[in-house]
Amino acid sequence: MTTTATPSYDALTATWLRLYRLGHLQSMASWDQAANMPPKGNTARGQALAEIAMLTHGMRTDPALKDHLARAKDEALSDAQRANLREIERNWFAANALPAELVERRALATSRCEYAWRTQRKANDWAGFAANLKSVLEVGREEARHLADRSGLSPYDALIDRFEPGMRGATIDRIFGEVKQWLPGMISRITARQASETTLAPQGPFDRAAQRALCERVMRVLQFDFDGGRLDVSSHPFSGGVPEDVRLTTRFRDDEFVQSLMGTIHETGHGRYEQNLPRELLGQPVAEARSMALHESQSLAFEMQVGCHPGFLGNIAPLIRDAFGDQPALATANLQRLLTRVQPGFIRVDADEVTYPAHVIMRYEIERGLIEGRYEVDDIPALWDEQMMTLLGVDTRGNFRDGPMQDVHWPEGLFGYFACYSLGAMYAAQWFATMRRQMPDLDAQISAGNLAPVFDWLRENIWLQGSRWTTDELAVRASGETLNPAHFKAHLEKRYLG
Amino acid sequence: MTTTATPSYDALTATWLRLYRLGHLQSMASWDQAANMPPKGNTARGQALAEIAMLTHGMRTDPALKDHLARAKDEALSDAQRANLREIERNWFAANALPAELVERRALATSRCEYAWRTQRKANDWAGFAANLKSVLEVGREEARHLADRSGLSPYDALIDRFEPGMRGATIDRIFGEVKQWLPGMISRITARQASETTLAPQGPFDRAAQRALCERVMRVLQFDFDGGRLDVSSHPFSGGVPEDVRLTTRFRDDEFVQSLMGTIHETGHGRYEQNLPRELLGQPVAEARSMALHESQSLAFEMQVGCHPGFLGNIAPLIRDAFGDQPALATANLQRLLTRVQPGFIRVDADEVTYPAHVIMRYEIERGLIEGRYEVDDIPALWDEQMMTLLGVDTRGNFRDGPMQDVHWPEGLFGYFACYSLGAMYAAQWFATMRRQMPDLDAQISAGNLAPVFDWLRENIWLQGSRWTTDELAVRASGETLNPAHFKAHLEKRYLG
Ligand SMILES: [Zn+2]
Ligand SMILES: [Zn+2]
Repeated sequence: MTTTATPSYDALTATWLRLYRLGHLQSMASWDQAANMPPKGNTARGQALAEIAMLTHGMRTDPALKDHLARAKDEALSDAQRANLREIERNWFAANALPAELVERRALATSRCEYAWRTQRKANDWAGFAANLKSVLEVGREEARHLADRSGLSPYDALIDRFEPGMRGATIDRIFGEVKQWLPGMISRITARQASETTLAPQGPFDRAAQRALCERVMRVLQFDFDGGRLDVSSHPFSGGVPEDVRLTTRFRDDEFVQSLMGTIHETGHGRYEQNLPRELLGQPVAEARSMALHESQSLAFEMQVGCHPGFLGNIAPLIRDAFGDQPALATANLQRLLTRVQPGFIRVDADEVTYPAHVIMRYEIERGLIEGRYEVDDIPALWDEQMMTLLGVDTRGNFRDGPMQDVHWPEGLFGYFACYSLGAMYAAQWFATMRRQMPDLDAQISAGNLAPVFDWLRENIWLQGSRWTTDELAVRASGETLNPAHFKAHLEKRYLG
Repeated sequence: MTTTATPSYDALTATWLRLYRLGHLQSMASWDQAANMPPKGNTARGQALAEIAMLTHGMRTDPALKDHLARAKDEALSDAQRANLREIERNWFAANALPAELVERRALATSRCEYAWRTQRKANDWAGFAANLKSVLEVGREEARHLADRSGLSPYDALIDRFEPGMRGATIDRIFGEVKQWLPGMISRITARQASETTLAPQGPFDRAAQRALCERVMRVLQFDFDGGRLDVSSHPFSGGVPEDVRLTTRFRDDEFVQSLMGTIHETGHGRYEQNLPRELLGQPVAEARSMALHESQSLAFEMQVGCHPGFLGNIAPLIRDAFGDQPALATANLQRLLTRVQPGFIRVDADEVTYPAHVIMRYEIERGLIEGRYEVDDIPALWDEQMMTLLGVDTRGNFRDGPMQDVHWPEGLFGYFACYSLGAMYAAQWFATMRRQMPDLDAQISAGNLAPVFDWLRENIWLQGSRWTTDELAVRASGETLNPAHFKAHLEKRYLG
């Protein structure tokens, strides 16, 4: 064995390479669980995944790593290695920050809450749900205090930092505060304007094999690499697998194809980010996707910026008519109206891109108050009803099922996650504003069916950067500024009021 | 922690339960590699599988296990626990018997030989193949000596014992010696008798979706549990997955459906064995399938004993005609003739049940001579040509591709495996002879579409026994005697000359 000048750094990268390879098996088993597994496999699968989770947790919490982390900082590392060390330390911190006893209590509280929620939601049983959610909130607060103590961040910031490193509640407050100023007025203006429009609903049934073939055709248009990935069916669509073998899922309904198609386009954005992460340090944390908001900025770049672009729609509309036969609702102009229809509603995941931020902002404000002790679980319904009325003019009283019980995030204790969705939408708008500044003919290119300028820009500025930079650094390098919600506002104004 | 009276036994079962759970991930990743994985995933998959193989090898070779094995023998164990301990020790022995350096040389030699074989076979390049096979044989002999030294068996017996515990070359010699006495004459009589028969070949194309639906229908007839398993497509059909979630594969051709259907029935036999292994000690070696020959006795029970049974065929023929439309070749009597057509040929995997043993016997005799130093690689072609002429009347001179280069077993160093195929066919005949003795109306039941007596017998006597007994004990408990090839002979005489 040759000795190197960076023994501690090398020991760390060797451990994280092993974790990456074992993580491959975890990813594939989880994907299979959602896409293939018959019901009787579930217990054994859960036990297998728990076994390897315990094993990799043991590797991440090996006491020797702490010394290696300390010593590696004094070793002669390149800038890229130093960035990798930063990301290794983040990953190490996530595994080592919480006492095992708290991790266990958290798992118990969230799995009990999530499991009961599946039936409680259907029964609109707020009281039953609230009882379990209180336990989840309790461990969530404890978790936040622990992470805060060890990181020096405030409790809620420490929770955000798990998903969106470097992002702070103060920044989100400022950004969401701005959005709240203009969003309700913009929604009113858009819905007033759209009130006189006639939009036809496509008439099914839509053959599932034809839907699948259409989705795959559109994925090819979006340059998804089928030699390094697949599309399959699962009840909750997601992007899984590993960068070398990306597994996207969707679901099909006989009476509707738009949701599945747009969902596939969304997941394709996640998938291409993964497929184009840097290959030099593959297996190391620095080669992984930057953050949740950045990931969502890619899926929304595909779904909203490209997918709902009139020029792009003009190019895929013939593929849609080819799949299902022609009908008036499949005319390009009608599809365009359908995809840009703004309509305040109860459900976040069904929301259009204009009303979506309202759903996120209220969740963010409520969960922040919950973690910071300003609100309790019993306050949620009143806060929910008030915010839904203020931001979207929607009356949610008594409808818990389509209100605070609609998401799995809180039952799972994922406080600090919701904001990423809208931060992602804003980053996506910022990337496209930059592209248009640099390439004034971008829209003409998209309309002409040439997506290469978009993909080249994203590959160069986002995908190939992996986790080389902090998110702020990456944003400045890519667009000249950190996250600026003005681009999102301008995007909505141009598309919906232009 | 409570102390138990069996601390060493408990430590061993805890380790093997962990290995079982990690093995679940290995099985599923291997299945996915064959059934789903796009080409660019291959390197990462290989690295992930190598990583977990190294990890589980480390667990199996933990020096502490040796003491536990010694001490567990003195602990107060039930008979079932003692059987489990025996199987744990077998598994431990397999992982610990060979020095790491030899394992590595073996892996290098076999992967080089197997990789080159893929192109050499197509090119009929015996000289190129022989050069690599010599290295494989060299490590194979070394492996056999090592295993012999540590087990007290003879070198070739030590190789057999890996696949067929308790089976010895002397027993196989006796059994195959008998078969060689009557087989060539029987083949002549059958082919003479069939010479006057007219058999129609079904005319394709056969829609793949219809083939798949037919296979799944027949699997349901055979009571495969789709809540605990699946059928998918891979280029080399196999039965994979885990007992709780059995993954069978097949492959479809447009111009032919019989191979795929019969292959599926074969894999369904493997699959039902796995699905019905005992559940009490699930995760422990004693709950696993007994051996390769026993496994093959189940797949051949399904494919040959049931699948080619005229009564069973009468029941699935309408499903076949339902799948592809009627044509004269799909008449039950013609299908029956098609499936019992005996025709000496070059290729083992394409052979009918009568000529199949000839292929196995000659491979067994050649590989035994190779391991025992009586033959060298350069002797193989002459031995092959002579045996093929003697046993099957087939001239193979110069045709290495369809001769000694047709199988992957030797390139992969799997000496000791081939015999299991025919031992399995003989066990299957023995099980059915026993069933008929115990249930004189068995054939009438099968013809009436009632397979429950068959499945109940197999479940009770084979499946639920797992590895509780040695193979000889299991055979005696199930059928009153150890392996007796007379039943196989009687089966062939009845079916082909009756
Ligand atoms: Zn997404
Ligand atoms: Zn088989």
